[in-house]
Amino acid sequence: MLDSAVPPMAPRRDTKHALREICRIAARVLYDKGYDGASMQDIAEAVGLTKAGLYHHVGSKDRLLFEIMNYGMNILDEVVVSKVRDIVDPRERLRRTIIGHIDLVVRTRDLEITVILHENRSLKGDLRRVINARKQAYIRLLEQTIAEVQAGTSAPPRISPRLASFALLGMINWLYQWYRPEGPIKEPELAETYVDFFFRGLLGER
Amino acid sequence: MLDSAVPPMAPRRDTKHALREICRIAARVLYDKGYDGASMQDIAEAVGLTKAGLYHHVGSKDRLLFEIMNYGMNILDEVVVSKVRDIVDPRERLRRTIIGHIDLVVRTRDLEITVILHENRSLKGDLRRVINARKQAYIRLLEQTIAEVQAGTSAPPRISPRLASFALLGMINWLYQWYRPEGPIKEPELAETYVDFFFRGLLGER
Repeated sequence: MLDSAVPPMAPRRDTKHALREICRIAARVLYDKGYDGASMQDIAEAVGLTKAGLYHHVGSKDRLLFEIMNYGMNILDEVVVSKVRDIVDPRERLRRTIIGHIDLVVRTRDLEITVILHENRSLKGDLRRVINARKQAYIRLLEQTIAEVQAGTSAPPRISPRLASFALLGMINWLYQWYRPEGPIKEPELAETYVDFFFRGLLGER
Repeated sequence: MLDSAVPPMAPRRDTKHALREICRIAARVLYDKGYDGASMQDIAEAVGLTKAGLYHHVGSKDRLLFEIMNYGMNILDEVVVSKVRDIVDPRERLRRTIIGHIDLVVRTRDLEITVILHENRSLKGDLRRVINARKQAYIRLLEQTIAEVQAGTSAPPRISPRLASFALLGMINWLYQWYRPEGPIKEPELAETYVDFFFRGLLGER
């Protein structure tokens, strides 16, 4: 709220906005040419900056890759985590998390960011650790929600929250490999089918 | 059988063996440096060939990438498909397929090939089409087996064989992102848990 109300904050918002736009466009270039195949010059041209201007914004190519991944995790927080965090019923929270995460992966405009986030071997050292820590935090959130769902039933758990979380992440994150929104399976059908499949796998028949 | 019995076949076998070794080692170099980051010189040195010798064996860098992916699909055929094809009971066939595919993905010695097979944007044109056709054939096999399993129950299907296949592929192929054989979850436990989870998701409670 303050950000949009107080004029002195505007420059910071512009910088943030510029960084997001750079991340989006750079992700497309990296996706097309590969991390090693894309030069900072290629990326600067695509973004519409001089090479010096691009370096001014992102510091280095490593740092740019980090910013893209960090932006991907920001989107996950914004469009999934922050929207489900306050849902009291764990089943409903899990259901909304699955639907939100599927929506994020199949949104074509962020496809390149999704791919780069998953194929993260190019990132090294501390920057890689920061991204991995954010991914771990999301996995812990899934595990906790799954454990709560299991605790709400009378049956003993059939799968550990950890394995169930990774099975779920696999089902969802793999979508970028094959799912096309323009194909025969529409997103609501996909999401509902995956939610039901996951809940049956987790809990058995209801 | 003929291959190992008839001396004139030996040279062909040697060539095949040499190509497999090149694929294995080259996969490691491509995995470490990325397709664009790894030069044919890097790969030749790792394999222990001159650059000319490497080109003699594989023709081009594109072709080498294709051979690695093709080799990955050969392994899938050898260690999974060929071993389950003649199992009459579809449930048992599906169970063995899941266990075999999990084993393939978590075998550390082929990790790089698995990764390269999944991150296949570097392959273009006809070579890419050949690999994708082989992947499609495997998916059809999964779909058929799943449909047979569903047909063997009295309940109406709860998920299409296609979506169930992709959910399964996601669960299994995603393992390379997180599963470590030296970690706390051993492969037999992982495989059994995933098999049971998948069958519950597919059919509901048994």
